[in-house]
Amino acid sequence: MSTKQRIIQASIELFNLHGERAITTNHIAAHLNMSPGNLYYHFPNKEAIIRGIFALYREHLQQHFVVPTTTDNTLNGLGQLLTSLFELFGRFHFFYDNLPTILARDDELAVMYRTQQQELLAQLVRFIHALNDQKILAIPASDVEPFAHNLKLTVSGWVPYVKTRQGIDVITNAILYRGVVQTLLLFKPYMLSSAQVVIAELMQHYQALAESES
Amino acid sequence: MSTKQRIIQASIELFNLHGERAITTNHIAAHLNMSPGNLYYHFPNKEAIIRGIFALYREHLQQHFVVPTTTDNTLNGLGQLLTSLFELFGRFHFFYDNLPTILARDDELAVMYRTQQQELLAQLVRFIHALNDQKILAIPASDVEPFAHNLKLTVSGWVPYVKTRQGIDVITNAILYRGVVQTLLLFKPYMLSSAQVVIAELMQHYQALAESES
Repeated sequence: MSTKQRIIQASIELFNLHGERAITTNHIAAHLNMSPGNLYYHFPNKEAIIRGIFALYREHLQQHFVVPTTTDNTLNGLGQLLTSLFELFGRFHFFYDNLPTILARDDELAVMYRTQQQELLAQLVRFIHALNDQKILAIPASDVEPFAHNLKLTVSGWVPYVKTRQGIDVITNAILYRGVVQTLLLFKPYMLSSAQVVIAELMQHYQALAESES
Repeated sequence: MSTKQRIIQASIELFNLHGERAITTNHIAAHLNMSPGNLYYHFPNKEAIIRGIFALYREHLQQHFVVPTTTDNTLNGLGQLLTSLFELFGRFHFFYDNLPTILARDDELAVMYRTQQQELLAQLVRFIHALNDQKILAIPASDVEPFAHNLKLTVSGWVPYVKTRQGIDVITNAILYRGVVQTLLLFKPYMLSSAQVVIAELMQHYQALAESES
């Protein structure tokens, strides 16, 4: 692992554990037994580290977010896609804890974030249309984009929601699986008859996973 | 207005405008042409002010959150309830921008918040059951509580979601009305036939309000 990557990984770990606000570049350097000067050689400030983390997050998101193309596997694909998304949100959860504050102090990151959010919305809209075309869902065309916003809100908001309601700092797999169940529930009332059974089974599957982990 | 109330109102205004993180008790005192000593006489620190704001927010929420009891007005009541909730979230939006951080540094506030969230969840669950009983909605009993969580997530997450996606600091009525539309959409697929038409009209009504304001 390069020094740059080590700094990124250590920062993610410390930000998630103690909150981004509490951690300075000096803490990160000390955690890595590295001089502050050496850290500054790679990243001029904390904002540059956070941009590096965001680029990594966006890259992971792109890799996971593959719209299923065959009808047979679409619903299982949906379960796996959501699991990947929640794992990703769990791994980078500090970012969503203070998002407005983090973005307010770094215009460059704010532009990166907004571009990525537009892309993600467009991907979700295509995904929902694909499910509609495959007769798995029946969402009226005019509701597709608002529904995509609700999906994004639930997926990105779930981890901070549970953290604040339960007062916990450690994101367990149980929390992530429950997030998958919450998101599947958004799809459920739109499912056409045969898919209804499959989605209910999927929800039970992830609910059972959440319970076995907690 | 008492000095205590003036401090609370000025703090809400400054926190919303500049973010809670950027504002100190000295900023608040200066904004009110008040000595820091006078402010400390009423509130020993910023945490005490935030607890005072939260108590006010909770009081407003309790007043607005009245479960409709007659079938005729339930759906219009839903629209009005959601509008009140979004106005409330708009008026206190700084709180949800950094919620995990704010709660992490004040155990007393965290306990107040978690108790209020439990109460709110229970109220929502009762509300959804009432809509089910009145044959407006048809949500399977096992989905009622997860659905209530999704509602809470959407209502509390909408303002920060729009702020971060659009990079804006000022919460307009248009944003709040769009939040009402997003939340009505969560109810829509569960609506029984006659209510389907009413909810579609309600969504159009709030969508039109949002467009006329933006």
